[in-house]
This record gives sequence, C-alpha cells and structure tokens, in this order.
Amino acid sequence: MSMKEEVRNMKLSAPEMASSAAEVRDRALQLAAEKLEAEKEAVFAENAKDLAAAEAAGVAPAIRKRLKFNEEKLADVLAGIRILIGLPDPVGKVSLDRELDEGLRLVRVSCPIGVIGVIFEARPDALVQISTLCIKSGNCAVLKGGKETANTNRILFRLIREAAVEAGLPENALLQAEQHSEIDELLACDREVDLLIPRGSNAFVQYIMNNTKIPVMGHADGICHIYVDKDADLSKAVPVIVDAKTQYTAACNAVETLLIDRCIAPEFLPSLAEALRKEQVKLYGTEEAAALTGCEVIGEADFREYLDLAVSVKLVDGVEEAISHINRYGSHHTDAILTENAKTAERFMQMVDSAGVYQNCSTRFADGFRYGFGAEVGISTGKIHARGPVGLEGLVTYKYRLFGSGQTVGDYASGRRSFHFRDLT
Amino acid sequence: MSMKEEVRNMKLSAPEMASSAAEVRDRALQLAAEKLEAEKEAVFAENAKDLAAAEAAGVAPAIRKRLKFNEEKLADVLAGIRILIGLPDPVGKVSLDRELDEGLRLVRVSCPIGVIGVIFEARPDALVQISTLCIKSGNCAVLKGGKETANTNRILFRLIREAAVEAGLPENALLQAEQHSEIDELLACDREVDLLIPRGSNAFVQYIMNNTKIPVMGHADGICHIYVDKDADLSKAVPVIVDAKTQYTAACNAVETLLIDRCIAPEFLPSLAEALRKEQVKLYGTEEAAALTGCEVIGEADFREYLDLAVSVKLVDGVEEAISHINRYGSHHTDAILTENAKTAERFMQMVDSAGVYQNCSTRFADGFRYGFGAEVGISTGKIHARGPVGLEGLVTYKYRLFGSGQTVGDYASGRRSFHFRDLT
Repeated sequence: MSMKEEVRNMKLSAPEMASSAAEVRDRALQLAAEKLEAEKEAVFAENAKDLAAAEAAGVAPAIRKRLKFNEEKLADVLAGIRILIGLPDPVGKVSLDRELDEGLRLVRVSCPIGVIGVIFEARPDALVQISTLCIKSGNCAVLKGGKETANTNRILFRLIREAAVEAGLPENALLQAEQHSEIDELLACDREVDLLIPRGSNAFVQYIMNNTKIPVMGHADGICHIYVDKDADLSKAVPVIVDAKTQYTAACNAVETLLIDRCIAPEFLPSLAEALRKEQVKLYGTEEAAALTGCEVIGEADFREYLDLAVSVKLVDGVEEAISHINRYGSHHTDAILTENAKTAERFMQMVDSAGVYQNCSTRFADGFRYGFGAEVGISTGKIHARGPVGLEGLVTYKYRLFGSGQTVGDYASGRRSFHFRDLT
Repeated sequence: MSMKEEVRNMKLSAPEMASSAAEVRDRALQLAAEKLEAEKEAVFAENAKDLAAAEAAGVAPAIRKRLKFNEEKLADVLAGIRILIGLPDPVGKVSLDRELDEGLRLVRVSCPIGVIGVIFEARPDALVQISTLCIKSGNCAVLKGGKETANTNRILFRLIREAAVEAGLPENALLQAEQHSEIDELLACDREVDLLIPRGSNAFVQYIMNNTKIPVMGHADGICHIYVDKDADLSKAVPVIVDAKTQYTAACNAVETLLIDRCIAPEFLPSLAEALRKEQVKLYGTEEAAALTGCEVIGEADFREYLDLAVSVKLVDGVEEAISHINRYGSHHTDAILTENAKTAERFMQMVDSAGVYQNCSTRFADGFRYGFGAEVGISTGKIHARGPVGLEGLVTYKYRLFGSGQTVGDYASGRRSFHFRDLT
C-alpha cells in the first residue's frame, strides 16, 4: 500500500479514534509505559546498533549524544507518560452552550484534530513524547523519525502501537514511515493530514514549511532577546543573562541578542562581558558595544541564532528602540526585559510581538514543562491556532453541535420566529 | 512605495494598533457608521457607476445583484457595526493565570493577530463587515476587493479609514490594494501578513490557498449533507430539507446531498421528490434513487456543490453508511441527521468530521449571526485555529507574559528550586 493510501485509511479511522473513551486512551498509555519498562534491554540493544553505526559514519559526538536512548532517557519518557495519564481529558470540553431559540441548542465541544503528521530528526525520546500526546488527545499519528535512529524508532514504535491496539484503539491509529522518500509523500497528503509537527533544525523545519499545503505547527528560528533597561536591578541581570545564554545553548529559547540601555552601558557592560567570558561565551556586537567590551564588531543585520556559546550585543536608546529592534530582527519566540519599572515593563510586554514576553527572568523558561502543561508538542512561533509552548490544548479543535426539533431558517428570515441567544453555562 | 514595503510598515505599526484602547476602537466604529450614513448619497452614486459598468460589460443580473450597495445593504452594515460596538473587547482576556513558583507568575492574555489580509470578490458590504471586525479586534488590515466594485470600494474604504484615523488609530492600520497584480504581491508577503481571509468562489479560494505560504482561513467547498434516518419524524423532514435546499441556494451551507435510509425510502422519497420539484429543484441520484423518484442517474463520485436548485440523492444502509459517505465525499462544513433517536444522533454527531453536526434542523443555520456571534469573518472548514463560523474570537491569538524577580532555569534544573504551579483564577 502506498503512503497516501495508508494515510487515507487512517483518515477514515480518525473519527473512531476521536470517539474512543478517555479510559481506553489512558489505558493505552499505561500499557505503553509497562512495555517500555519490560522491554528496555531490547530497546537499549537496538539503540546500541544505531550508536555504533553513527560512530562508524563519523557522526559528531554532540549529535551522537542526542541519538542515545538510555536508562535516563527512559526514566524521562516514563515520567512524561505518567504525568500525561494524570492530566484531564482534553476531548469533550464544552466551551459554548447556547440556546438560540426554544428547542434549538448550540454546543461547542472540543475534539481531536484528526490525523497529525510528526516528522522529527534523530531524537528517539521525541517519538515517545509525541505519540503519547497524540494518543492522549485522541489523534491518529503518522511518525517519521530520523534514519540515524531507525532501529531504536522501530522498536519504540512497535511497543507503543501494540499498547494502543491492546487497549482497544483502532489498528491504524498509529503509523510509522521509515523511508526518507516518505517525507515528501507525507507532505503531499494535504487532504488526509490535518496538521504537521516538524521537530528539528531550522533548515529542516523551513524545508517542511516550504514544501507542503498542510498547516505546520512549529518554529524555525529562535532569536530570543534580553533587553537590560536603565531601571534594571543589575545584580539580578548578570545571573539571568548567564543562565539564558549558557544553561543549554542548543535550545531555541536560549538568548542570542542582548540589548543594553545606552545610559547604563558604560557601568554595566564591561562586568557583564567579563561574566560571560568566564563561561566561555564569545561576544559579537556593534562598534559601540565593542568599545566597551572589546568584542568582535558585526552589523546588527548579522545578529543571528548561534545555538552556541556566543551572543550579539547592541546599545539602544531605551525601551522603544529595544522594541523596534526585536520586532524587526527577532523571531517572535521569547523576549525579556530586565527592569524594576512596571510601566516600562508593561510597554515592552504590550508592544513586543512574541509568543513569550518576560520581565526579570531567563528566556529559558519558555517550555511546556516549566509552564505546567505536563508535556509539549513543540513551541510555536506562528500566531494561528497555538502560540508558544504547545501542550495537549494544541492538539484539539472543536465542533459545533446543533440540536433542533425541525427548525428552518426561512422561519427566522421571514420574522415568523426569532433568536433569543441564551447562554446555558 | 511597493505593496511589500507598505505591508512591512503596517507590520511595524501593528503592535501600536494592538495596544489601542477598546474605547478608541469603538469610537472608530461609531465614526465609521456616522460617515457611512452622512455620505450615503455619494456612496450610492459611486455604486451606480460600478453597476452601469457591469451592465455595459454584460455581467449577469444575478451577479450584478451582489454588486449593489443600496439603502438596504447600508442598513445591514450599519446594524452590523452597532452590534459590533456592543460586543465585549476580544483583546486582553486572561485565559491562564498561574504562579509557577514564588514570585514567578505566568499570564496568558489574548491579543490581536496583527496584520490580516482580506481578499474578496465583488461584494462591497464584505469590505465594511471585515474592516470593522478588524478594527474591533485591534488588527491591521490590507483589503483587496473585486474590480467590479472598484468605485464603491474606494469610497467605503476612504470613509472607514478616515474614521479610524480620526478616532486616533495608527495612520497605516488600514490599507487598500486596488490593482489586480497586488493580489500576488500580497500572497508573497508571508513575513508581513499573519493571516489571509479570502471571500469568494470555490476556485478563487482554492487559488489563494495554493499560492501562498500565509495561513489561510476559509472554505473552498460547501458540500453539506442531510441524512434522513429510519427513526426520523418524516413530517419535519420535508420542510427542513426544502429550507436547506431552497432558502438561499448560493450559500455554502445549503444542502447538496440527501442520504436516505433505505428502509424508509419507498415510503418517504416519492413525497420528498414531489415537494422539492414543486420548488423547482432538479434531482440527481443513484439508480436506486432514480427508481423511486424518476431523477437523472449520476454516480456518487459526481455528487457536487450545485449552489443552485439541484440536489443529489442516495440511499444508504443506516447511519454508519451515511457517516462514511459524508466523511469521504463531504467538505467538513455542516451536515445534519434527521432522527428522533438520540443514540443514533449521538453516533452521527460524534463520527461526522465536520465543523457543524446538526440534529433535526436545517444546515442553513451555519452562520455567525445565527450562532449569536454578532458578525462573522467567514466560515472555516479547516481545523486549525478556528472552525465553523468565525467571529471576533478568530481574529485574536494570545501571548504569554511571565513576571519574575531574577529567576534562572539553572536553579530549577539543579533542584535548588522547584515549581509549584498554582492557578490564580
């Protein structure tokens, strides 16, 4: 069967998956956790094959680390599944219950999106995380993982799918794509797949976005800013900036550009530069910034996402210039202001057009777990549907149910009857 | 200035528009209503030019009717604006307020999407409707109307824009595109325009969807179904079907396909056919349907959106076959079941994958005004962001504001601090 046919069959099963009971979905998660635990040695053995192949192929150690699926990763995904089981069912929530007229009642109720396509680069834990989120939310899922962890993905997928079927979910609620060519086949399934979630590098996500008509949820860039205002408490500023830059440099929510209020720069910037250099951070910046720190000079159009121990620095004339720099050069992900002035903070948070706008804390907080969502599908820099860290809420939509007793529109158009719109909740 | 430059400037003004006070936006709407009323003779005169040109060009009377902007259309749009002014502000609504830890508070607050591109075929009232919805929701808007009403659009746009600026909204919050070539220019502005709303024919919407990377909200097809179950109250069925088919045939929510439970077909279908023919409705259907009604035979793959006094008919074996026909051939818009059996209705409403699932009423109810939304931007058959009739809610997104006091992620990662996630609302 071709990919398209398989996904079409999945689409026809999606309403069955969507109407499965919450207990059945939670039971599938429970079984998945048990199977992963019971079969962990087999999983680790498959992962060892992938790691050996990667080493033989000369894959860099930093990337090999991401391919690894060991006791620690297993413990993380099991903890994630347990949290997920404990979360309330996102399906069937009533967000509007309105009597339009006597005997004509409109109810808006949440339901799964349907068929989710997930394409991720080499990170086996992402397979577990996202497939379990899809199960919990009643969605069918097509999963395409990176070929570097093909063996690990295969066994993880098999265990999770077995759990789903054993619990009573439809046979074709979960599908694994293994061939690289299947990515493009999947991207062409715009009548069958309702939403695509890519997880991977900037270039990878950009490729997906440019090559499909299916809605894509995710982010390509993460150029996060911290603006240090003249009213900042400078004793807090250094640790927050060091954390945002160094705590995990490969993350999309790490800070990449520092904007410093010109009037505090001479006092603050040299000590900040020293603190950052102590952590091996390389500084780039405008000529003015270089004069105060000795950093390498680059133009602001060259400020970029380093995903590394490097940061750009620019001096600005207060919060307005900071706002306009961020809205022009940022990626609408997460941007922070450090200030004790509530009015300045309000202006910044109002005007900066990003999913996350922070006052006096690290940009690294932009994360589904840290927001208390229990798990995240990814972080969206789009404004349509879901924005910022996306948890279960991002995997549901809604439908309108209208219960009547023979009503016709003609009666209302002619004035024989009229609506009274009474909200029942 | 090129279209792209103009839209880029608009994008940079969008945060200013987004932070405008609700009173200012309502004042702009009030002024717009006053100007439209005061200048109505000038508007009608411009419209007369468009109508004369259309007649000279041989445009069909049915289409010319849509181009008309007269006292009646004016009264409709003024009533719409008055309702809009009375609706609560969709901006600034808090949907999550959570203390993550002592002194670290996360607030999710609704905000305008930013820049909305609206492309509509010849319907001057749509210009007023959508631009006022954008003003109410704090969005900037680029409007491109059909060339058939260029004169009417120009004066309507001028009056609304003057009202916005007089009320104190940004100069470039509203922009009109008048050249046909500007449609493609607008479709290429994927970094500047956050959402596109096309209003027009199936082919027109499809063209937009196929030629842009900007998210599109709308619907191309409207193939709505009514399934008449064996437990239907047949005395209600005929008027509901006649209404759904004939009350306004050009609407996307008019019924296009009738599915009749096989076991009631011999009794019911001949009388239904008679009632429909009395209203000049032409019937098409499967051989079985033809045997009972004498309609023209067509295959179910040829069932289509007629937007006219015509309907397709098919016999099915109960609700399951109805569901699978609808999910396969429908357009996920609005589908109804006629039955007195609550269990059968529940199954239908659960399994049919459409924005609207109705029991015992006409599909023509799928409309923002009839749902009590006050106004609608359009009807979405997509599942991402907004589904079904879309009112003001569909024009806002949200951002996460995080208020801290120097917190770093390192402290939580190392276990020195931990989250307590306390919802404050």
